[in-house]
Amino acid sequence: MPVGTMATVKGLSIDQLAQTGAQMVLSNTYHLHLQPGEEIVAAAGGLHKFMGWSGPMLTDSGGFQVFSLGNLNRIDDRGVVFRNPRDGRTIDMTPEFATGIQMQLGADVAMAFDQCPPYPASENDVAEACRRTHAWLERCINAHKREDQALFGIVQGGCFPHLRRESARAVSDFNLPGIAVGGVSVGEPVEEMHRIVREVMPLLPTDRPRYLMGIGTLREMAVAVANGIDLFDCVLPTRLGRHGTALVGGERWNLRNARFRHDHTPLDPTCPCIACRQHSRAYLHHLIRSEELLGLTLLSLHNITQLIRFTTAMAQAIRDGCFSEDFAPWEQDSPARHTW
Amino acid sequence: MPVGTMATVKGLSIDQLAQTGAQMVLSNTYHLHLQPGEEIVAAAGGLHKFMGWSGPMLTDSGGFQVFSLGNLNRIDDRGVVFRNPRDGRTIDMTPEFATGIQMQLGADVAMAFDQCPPYPASENDVAEACRRTHAWLERCINAHKREDQALFGIVQGGCFPHLRRESARAVSDFNLPGIAVGGVSVGEPVEEMHRIVREVMPLLPTDRPRYLMGIGTLREMAVAVANGIDLFDCVLPTRLGRHGTALVGGERWNLRNARFRHDHTPLDPTCPCIACRQHSRAYLHHLIRSEELLGLTLLSLHNITQLIRFTTAMAQAIRDGCFSEDFAPWEQDSPARHTW
Repeated sequence: MPVGTMATVKGLSIDQLAQTGAQMVLSNTYHLHLQPGEEIVAAAGGLHKFMGWSGPMLTDSGGFQVFSLGNLNRIDDRGVVFRNPRDGRTIDMTPEFATGIQMQLGADVAMAFDQCPPYPASENDVAEACRRTHAWLERCINAHKREDQALFGIVQGGCFPHLRRESARAVSDFNLPGIAVGGVSVGEPVEEMHRIVREVMPLLPTDRPRYLMGIGTLREMAVAVANGIDLFDCVLPTRLGRHGTALVGGERWNLRNARFRHDHTPLDPTCPCIACRQHSRAYLHHLIRSEELLGLTLLSLHNITQLIRFTTAMAQAIRDGCFSEDFAPWEQDSPARHTW
Repeated sequence: MPVGTMATVKGLSIDQLAQTGAQMVLSNTYHLHLQPGEEIVAAAGGLHKFMGWSGPMLTDSGGFQVFSLGNLNRIDDRGVVFRNPRDGRTIDMTPEFATGIQMQLGADVAMAFDQCPPYPASENDVAEACRRTHAWLERCINAHKREDQALFGIVQGGCFPHLRRESARAVSDFNLPGIAVGGVSVGEPVEEMHRIVREVMPLLPTDRPRYLMGIGTLREMAVAVANGIDLFDCVLPTRLGRHGTALVGGERWNLRNARFRHDHTPLDPTCPCIACRQHSRAYLHHLIRSEELLGLTLLSLHNITQLIRFTTAMAQAIRDGCFSEDFAPWEQDSPARHTW
């Protein structure tokens, strides 16, 4: 899922977003609550109509942003009190409130409000966050009243295997239509993340979507898919694009680099996106050097296309029975050595 | 002609640019000389291939920018010496050099290097600029060697009717494939500009394109077309779009305004652009408030579409023999009172 924080995947029109091959789009509850506010999105007929995306959509719970971006005043079993950075107003975010906002936003999937501990955190703090996350999950389920919207629970547990296992079992017990693994990509070493995925996945039901939150690099997606993950989200392709960086064959190229100045070949001759079909590296270099908006749009579009091509290739390999063979190298070592 | 200063119409992909209905695109010689340099554009196969636009293109001569943006060191009959604001290097711009750059850029139309006096300027200064412009035109013609590229001359003369008439005759005498009226939209009152157009147009040949430089408001285009102008360029639609302003029915709407917050209707229900077909005023307001790139792209795209619809409607009215009837009101009075 490309990330459309503000009900727009940054820099891309709806047509361009569709061209990337993306199916499902994520949007951020925390940001949409602050601007424009869920009542405006609801009055527009929901998030799909508001932004013009007819494919599936998911909203996160806002929990991650409350803990990482908000000015936290208080956190207890009731919920989280924080200050709105835009106007200084105090917001009282509870599992019920977060669920209510998401019901108004009206995405196809809503996420339970969880407590995502930072990395590193003590075993006690992570255990406390797990206990609270499970209690909040029950309250989210009770508050959730939309039959046309799925509610996914989130497994926490930091880097403590027994807490991860406990959380995986606790969340699975609620028999929800989908489950996410959260609390990854929060600063832990990448090997820890691989370990968490390997630890947790065998405990989750296999007959419904399993979503690894905040992941979007090729190797990590290959490892996750090998362990049964179905869904990802990541700001990386658009954020890198806005910084002039293109994902090409597992590498990251800074298009500002002078080596592209005279390079009139396509960015990636194997890529079907308009940046690669209509333009050259020299032109993209020129746009980035000139700080032209189009450069950011084209690189974002290209980067999303690359990730979607990768996940599509993995899906096809699974259907063709050759996933382990084709994607095993991605699990073991540096992505730069492989092609797909 | 939408303006693609840096070989990109700011914020629009080539597909989006085509969707506006635009046929011909202008690009700026001065800017392209500084970045990426004409030799890179030539190595790409020319401006069309470099930016991916297959429709007709025109490059200005750089004269206007040299006088308005450059750090002028010296101007004499030989040419203009100015300092490159990017690296402080001195550039010696002559009619031959400006023509050579444009031959390398390879647009369908190149413009003669002219001296565009500021407004206001004394009669002596304007007469001097006219004399120089005509002498430089002859040098441009001698330097111009591309048979697949048309060279247009530029009429100057400021707000002095006899100088305008003299310049119109002098430039017409060169029997070029097209003629532009320059030195307008440089700060003079709009009535002066109308007067200049009415003064100059009867003296220009009617069997080839006549281009009014730097104009792009509805009333001014209607007045100009009524007097025989065929071609315009203007940064207004994209510049307004980047500042959150939409052109709707002859008015300018600031989409940041709170009155659009709850307005879920299309920006302009009569407009075929994606901003109007896929989105609402409330969504555009939200994008502009959130400083999202997509907001700037959508408003630029909409504004260009509006201007192209207007010029297309004028062209159709001419073919249908009802131009004077349909567009006379635009000539006389405030555009906000009319629809088209």
